[in-house]
Amino acid sequence: MTYCVGLKLNRGLVMAADTRTNAGLDNIATFRKLNTLEVPGDRVFIMMSAGNLAVTQAVVALLDESFKRKPKRGNQDSLKSVDTMFHAAKLVGKLLKSVRSEHLEEGMKSDAFSASFIFGGQIGKEPPRLYEIYAEGNFIEAMEDTPFLQIGEHKYGKPILDRVANLDMRLGEAAKLVLLSFDSTLRSNLSVGMPIDMVVYNTDTLAIDRVRRIEKDDPYFRKLSTSWSSALRKAVENIEEFDI
Amino acid sequence: MTYCVGLKLNRGLVMAADTRTNAGLDNIATFRKLNTLEVPGDRVFIMMSAGNLAVTQAVVALLDESFKRKPKRGNQDSLKSVDTMFHAAKLVGKLLKSVRSEHLEEGMKSDAFSASFIFGGQIGKEPPRLYEIYAEGNFIEAMEDTPFLQIGEHKYGKPILDRVANLDMRLGEAAKLVLLSFDSTLRSNLSVGMPIDMVVYNTDTLAIDRVRRIEKDDPYFRKLSTSWSSALRKAVENIEEFDI
Repeated sequence: MTYCVGLKLNRGLVMAADTRTNAGLDNIATFRKLNTLEVPGDRVFIMMSAGNLAVTQAVVALLDESFKRKPKRGNQDSLKSVDTMFHAAKLVGKLLKSVRSEHLEEGMKSDAFSASFIFGGQIGKEPPRLYEIYAEGNFIEAMEDTPFLQIGEHKYGKPILDRVANLDMRLGEAAKLVLLSFDSTLRSNLSVGMPIDMVVYNTDTLAIDRVRRIEKDDPYFRKLSTSWSSALRKAVENIEEFDI
Repeated sequence: MTYCVGLKLNRGLVMAADTRTNAGLDNIATFRKLNTLEVPGDRVFIMMSAGNLAVTQAVVALLDESFKRKPKRGNQDSLKSVDTMFHAAKLVGKLLKSVRSEHLEEGMKSDAFSASFIFGGQIGKEPPRLYEIYAEGNFIEAMEDTPFLQIGEHKYGKPILDRVANLDMRLGEAAKLVLLSFDSTLRSNLSVGMPIDMVVYNTDTLAIDRVRRIEKDDPYFRKLSTSWSSALRKAVENIEEFDI
């Protein structure tokens, strides 16, 4: 499995993905699932993927290729030239659908090629947007009421997001929250693994300059993990016992 | 769905189940999923169920019936006369399997009749035991390393158990922990609903006298839920922001 989470806040985007892939339990590998594309000063895109790695890598490769061509402004078939984030999300969905159907034509089971993306970014003066793109190529956008989107093994890390995530957070606060959500997931589920790739994007900078790979022995992450455990234990202790 | 959790501690057992059942999203009802049987001074049983309600109710009804007959000591076909908790768990598994296969013979899909139990109790001088019984009739027992078992919608409420549950807890502490685990699940998942049925069993009392139905407006649960939310938010705040 995988765990990816993206937050869309007033100040920008925070997105993070784990790097574990597995085929069975004894075939584990590390693959980057968070990828970025940018034209500094004009547009930035961050995409994170879950599901069949052959499918998601193919989609990312196609997006990459189209980015290297020199499409005319307004051509909706390259992230380099699409007008809006809505059309960018449509393009990712279209490619995802077509890569999957290529495989499906060869007579394989539909579930085997399931995949999804969290896709965020900003184009020009339009505010940043964040989408979840489904295997069928359709998508939803993160809105005010629920400023986060998750794909993969999302349940363990959801309670803390449900309680704490809000639009007005500082990006450093949001990055911390995302890592807490990862910490809960990593502890309870083997199929999600370190390192974690993270991008923090400040609205209107139109540049991807805050990128980090957080390794297992990252001092901040280790400290966060231990202080979170002891804070939780203390918080539990401080609540009165239940006497029935 | 359902959420049930059981803890086996040195001091006894704490078991709790929600009461929501649903067939689709617009057919929701409240059903008791926690049931008890006892011969005071001799044996106590607590069973909680998840999955197909027709199957689990039938199993509980059969266990109940066999309890009302007057079986000879050592007869392994009634909870009233089985020698050990191991044989008790075997009996529950056997009935579960046979009820399911009755339906399956009528040509229905196997998944539709899936069901499982958490089954705890104590017989005579044997220490209390706690089992998870699968749809296939086989079962596992909670041991020192992982003193809790969950069935149903278990992921949201697992991180807190993973961090805090330990064998030496007082039963009132464990009851509080179980309710915190429920609180996280209730917040993040619609298919689990109040009220919660809870039993706290003290080792060697061989009587079920601590039973409670915790309603939505229960003052303790409401207080726990709000203080937990604010303690979590405070705990998050107290961790230094992540600057990348």
